Amino acid sequence: MAKKISQAVIRRLPRYYRYLRDLLDEGIERISSNELSARMKVTASQIRQDLNNFGGFGQQGYGYNVQYLYDEIGKILGLDGHHNIIVIGAGNMGQALANYVNFEKRGFIMIGLFDVNPDLIGKTIRGIPIRHMDELTDFMKDHEADIAVLTLPKDQAEKAAEQIVNLGIHAIWNFAHLDLNLPKDVVVENVHLSDSLMQLSYNIVETRRRQV
Amino acid sequence: MAKKISQAVIRRLPRYYRYLRDLLDEGIERISSNELSARMKVTASQIRQDLNNFGGFGQQGYGYNVQYLYDEIGKILGLDGHHNIIVIGAGNMGQALANYVNFEKRGFIMIGLFDVNPDLIGKTIRGIPIRHMDELTDFMKDHEADIAVLTLPKDQAEKAAEQIVNLGIHAIWNFAHLDLNLPKDVVVENVHLSDSLMQLSYNIVETRRRQV
Repeated sequence: MAKKISQAVIRRLPRYYRYLRDLLDEGIERISSNELSARMKVTASQIRQDLNNFGGFGQQGYGYNVQYLYDEIGKILGLDGHHNIIVIGAGNMGQALANYVNFEKRGFIMIGLFDVNPDLIGKTIRGIPIRHMDELTDFMKDHEADIAVLTLPKDQAEKAAEQIVNLGIHAIWNFAHLDLNLPKDVVVENVHLSDSLMQLSYNIVETRRRQV
Repeated sequence: MAKKISQAVIRRLPRYYRYLRDLLDEGIERISSNELSARMKVTASQIRQDLNNFGGFGQQGYGYNVQYLYDEIGKILGLDGHHNIIVIGAGNMGQALANYVNFEKRGFIMIGLFDVNPDLIGKTIRGIPIRHMDELTDFMKDHEADIAVLTLPKDQAEKAAEQIVNLGIHAIWNFAHLDLNLPKDVVVENVHLSDSLMQLSYNIVETRRRQV
C-alpha cells in the first residue's frame, strides 16, 4: 500500500469491520454504500471516501462484496495473522479481558497471565495459570508474545512496562491509569476508563445545562 | 458558561484532571504551563489555549493554582456532585468495573448490579448483591440511578438498553460490542474494547511495514 491512510480513517476501520462481520453473520453477501450508511449512521459519501482509500472495493450498481471487504479490512488491521498476548496484572480487569473469547476468535491468543498478588498466583483462567511477575523473564525465553495487556495499578505499571519492553515486547494495551513513558518504537494503545467515565459525566451535565 | 467549548477540548479535560490530581498528591501547589507541558507532553501553547476556555486560571509569572484548576475542571466535568450507577451485566467485566474503588472516590456510586445468569444472582460485590434483571423495574421505584453501565453480551444489550431508558436513566456507559440505537436525549459513551485492540493491531503491523 503506497498511499498513507489518515489516522482518522484508520480509527473508523474497526467499526466497519464490526458491521461487516454482522452482515456476514446475517448471510448478507453484498451491500450498497447507501444501505451500509443507513445501518452505520454515517453518510454514504463518507463510506465511499473511506473505502476508496483501499483501492475501492465497490462496483457501481453492485455495491460492496461483504466477504471481500471484510477480509481486506482484516488484512489492513493485521487480523489475518495472530498475536500472542500476555496479561500483566491478573486482577478483576485482567481476568475479565483474559476471559473474552471473542479476542481469541480474531487471532489474539492469550498465552500467559502475571501478577504479584500471592492470592492470585496458581489460579487458572481458561486453563492458563497466573504466574508471579518474577517468572516473566524466564517465561519469555521459551515463549513469543507480541502484545502485553497492562492492567496493574498506577504505581506498579511504569516499572512493569519498562520490563516488558526490555523483554522485547513492543506493543502495550494499557489499562493502567497513567500515560506510559516509553521509546518511540513501542506501540501503546490506551484505554483510560476513568477518562471515559468523566467524559460521560460531562455530557450528562451538559445535557442538563441545555435543558434548563 | 456562555462560551461553547469544543468537544476536542472537552476530550482533553479528563487528562488534565488526572495530571492535576497527581500534582496535588505530590503536594505541588502551583505549576507553569511550561512545567505542565513537560509532564503532559503537550505544547505549553496548547495548554494555555485549552485552559483559557475556562476564563484563564493562570497568572503571568505565577502559573496555575493546581487546587483551583483541579476544582474548576472537576465542576466542568460534573465531578463536584455524585452519580448513582447501576451495572447491567455482572459477568467478569461488570464485576471488574464494580470493583474499581477509584470511581467511587470521584463520586460515581454503584448502587445495584443486575444479570440474568442464575449462577451470579445473590453473589455480592463490595456488599452489593447481584439481582436478577426481572427486579430492575421494582428496584428503580425505590432508587435513583443516573448512569447505567452496560456490559451484557451483544444479543441482550439492545433490549436491556431500551428497558433502562424507559426506566428513566438517560446515560449509558456502553461496553457491549454494538452501537446502541437510542433517543437523542440519551447520553452514550462507548468503550469498544475490540475496536481498541484492532487499532493496536493495526499500529503493530504499520510499524513493521515502516521498518521493512
